[in-house]
Amino acid sequence: MEIKVVSNILKVNDAIARGNQSLFKEEGVFTVNIMGSPGAGKTSLLLRTIEGLGNDLKIGVIEGDIATTHDAELIQQTGVPVVQINTDGACHLDANMIKEALSHLDLSKIDLLFIENVGNLVCPAGFKLGESAKVAVLSVPEGDDKPKKYPAIFGIADAVILNKIDTLSVFDFDVASLHKDILSIKEGMEIFEVSCKTGEGLSSWINWLKKVVIL
Amino acid sequence: MEIKVVSNILKVNDAIARGNQSLFKEEGVFTVNIMGSPGAGKTSLLLRTIEGLGNDLKIGVIEGDIATTHDAELIQQTGVPVVQINTDGACHLDANMIKEALSHLDLSKIDLLFIENVGNLVCPAGFKLGESAKVAVLSVPEGDDKPKKYPAIFGIADAVILNKIDTLSVFDFDVASLHKDILSIKEGMEIFEVSCKTGEGLSSWINWLKKVVIL
Repeated sequence: MEIKVVSNILKVNDAIARGNQSLFKEEGVFTVNIMGSPGAGKTSLLLRTIEGLGNDLKIGVIEGDIATTHDAELIQQTGVPVVQINTDGACHLDANMIKEALSHLDLSKIDLLFIENVGNLVCPAGFKLGESAKVAVLSVPEGDDKPKKYPAIFGIADAVILNKIDTLSVFDFDVASLHKDILSIKEGMEIFEVSCKTGEGLSSWINWLKKVVIL
Repeated sequence: MEIKVVSNILKVNDAIARGNQSLFKEEGVFTVNIMGSPGAGKTSLLLRTIEGLGNDLKIGVIEGDIATTHDAELIQQTGVPVVQINTDGACHLDANMIKEALSHLDLSKIDLLFIENVGNLVCPAGFKLGESAKVAVLSVPEGDDKPKKYPAIFGIADAVILNKIDTLSVFDFDVASLHKDILSIKEGMEIFEVSCKTGEGLSSWINWLKKVVIL
């Protein structure tokens, strides 16, 4: 019974996600769902990415948070259009929340739409939003064992960002072991090692984005 | 419809949690549910706490993880009895998982049972396990804005551990602002600032534990 209900919820979600996807395709919008633990640096990554892309692409952002408009305010300061979704307790975004948020964005003026999911390394993996690509953000302080312990989100990701590499000397973190574990979950995964604090490594990520958005 | 089902699931969970609670009471076991983001340092805290308590209390541990027995193996090396729960994708422990795990522990030989929840700052807040106390673990690299952004878990906690204070010089983290935000969510909250790496601050936490377990 419980499983049936959950499966229906997922079916309804997937149908709405397909609708979002069609709309994104019609409007020529490439959409990236950014997922990761609280404090992994998802918003910092967005700020750096907006800065790094400059005027090359027209950007929009949907910010997902349980509470507060803190992250959306930071994004707004960059001048890109942003919509805040407050999930009011829910542990992930779903396709319907995105559908409703889209009515507040002019998609004809957006090439690349970032969706920052709720800080959670588990639940966002189960809910499609209609996005073109999924990115998992992991930060050095969280530890190199996270792909092994939370395989679902890494399994569905198209790219993994390892953030806060400026703190590698502070933490006991085995980068080679992380690569090995991620590649054993998904062969050929794109992995970018960056520091949103110092800016190190971000150009590879930004070049990858430009490449996938044009394709 | 969806809400009704969720509410039934919570009702069933609460009933099982009350059963666990009665059992803990009969057996004289004080139970602490440890919650926090992936990589906040929940297992490190347990290892330090087991070391710090020495032979003062007989300890047991239930380890909750989505996958792997990595954390349970670390605990086992200390010699305390440990049971691993693999949730197989589920984002939190529930009372029934605890009930089943208890059949693998001799409660008559345990004074203090730690339950390490799945790494998640959202979902564990919704599910009672029958525990005597709830502890939220936050680490400095996650940022000082987390209580504002994830208020539920801090609202139900009896104590908050701020871990990784040895990295305060590396991150832009306002400890005073954190205290203010936590206390605005719950007046009089116990807050312990610790480093499970250096051992700093752990004695206050351990003394608090000894005090609440005896009471």
